[in-house]
Amino acid sequence: MTILYFEEAEVGKLRMAGPYLVSKNDIIQFAEKFDPQPFHLNEEAAARSVFAGLTASGAHTFGILISLLSKTEPYSLRVVAGLGWDELRLPIPVRPGDELRLEVTILDKRQSKSNSDRGIIRNQIHLRNQKSEIVLECINNVLVACRPVA
Amino acid sequence: MTILYFEEAEVGKLRMAGPYLVSKNDIIQFAEKFDPQPFHLNEEAAARSVFAGLTASGAHTFGILISLLSKTEPYSLRVVAGLGWDELRLPIPVRPGDELRLEVTILDKRQSKSNSDRGIIRNQIHLRNQKSEIVLECINNVLVACRPVA
Repeated sequence: MTILYFEEAEVGKLRMAGPYLVSKNDIIQFAEKFDPQPFHLNEEAAARSVFAGLTASGAHTFGILISLLSKTEPYSLRVVAGLGWDELRLPIPVRPGDELRLEVTILDKRQSKSNSDRGIIRNQIHLRNQKSEIVLECINNVLVACRPVA
Repeated sequence: MTILYFEEAEVGKLRMAGPYLVSKNDIIQFAEKFDPQPFHLNEEAAARSVFAGLTASGAHTFGILISLLSKTEPYSLRVVAGLGWDELRLPIPVRPGDELRLEVTILDKRQSKSNSDRGIIRNQIHLRNQKSEIVLECINNVLVACRPVA
């Protein structure tokens, strides 16, 4: 697994992870703990909802994004700290049997002014289902370590 | 429990939920499934990390926010759909034994132009620990049902 320093991270280059298979049990278990809405918990109630079937909590979809984010290929980044998330949207719900894939592209990067040993990278993130529909998109800012001076 | 229609929701009015007690086991269980980093999984490894102790995954903290969001008092909103999350920041990590409280304030509201039966509400969200430190903040946009015409 290749983990890049700030200097080596290339703007515009795509990295990917997945697939992550989402089961009905996963959806129900997560919902029981964090989001006990009928359309996340119960297939029959969900069939009668606006979603016409069981869907994952948005917080669950975000959890799946996090689980894929550290596993991207052909490389990941030497992240020191997360700085935050912007423009997080969940345009299409995740359903049982979905296979999710993560796509991350570096939008821009800049050296930190206060710390010469790190830089700030802004990532565009897309999580897609097996039909290539976007189920989650957001922008993620991270602090990334610079290559240590020899 | 009071659930308000769009017309009844008052800009600037605070609603609250909690406390939500976070246990060490909760933190480890969530991390095993979604974010298996040493500082979320193992107390000894966490003690040696920059966090100097076990901390919850940011995705876990977001899950706790979701679990509190539908339980606010003195009222909640008749939400039709979530529209997204902006400026999500996690300035201080959640630790075992933390008691989290949610504060939500309506920043603004506007009638939908395309659908007269709903409106858009923008909420400022703060999740705080028992020391009143903010562990998560964000802005959340939701579509809220209008009072049905009699």
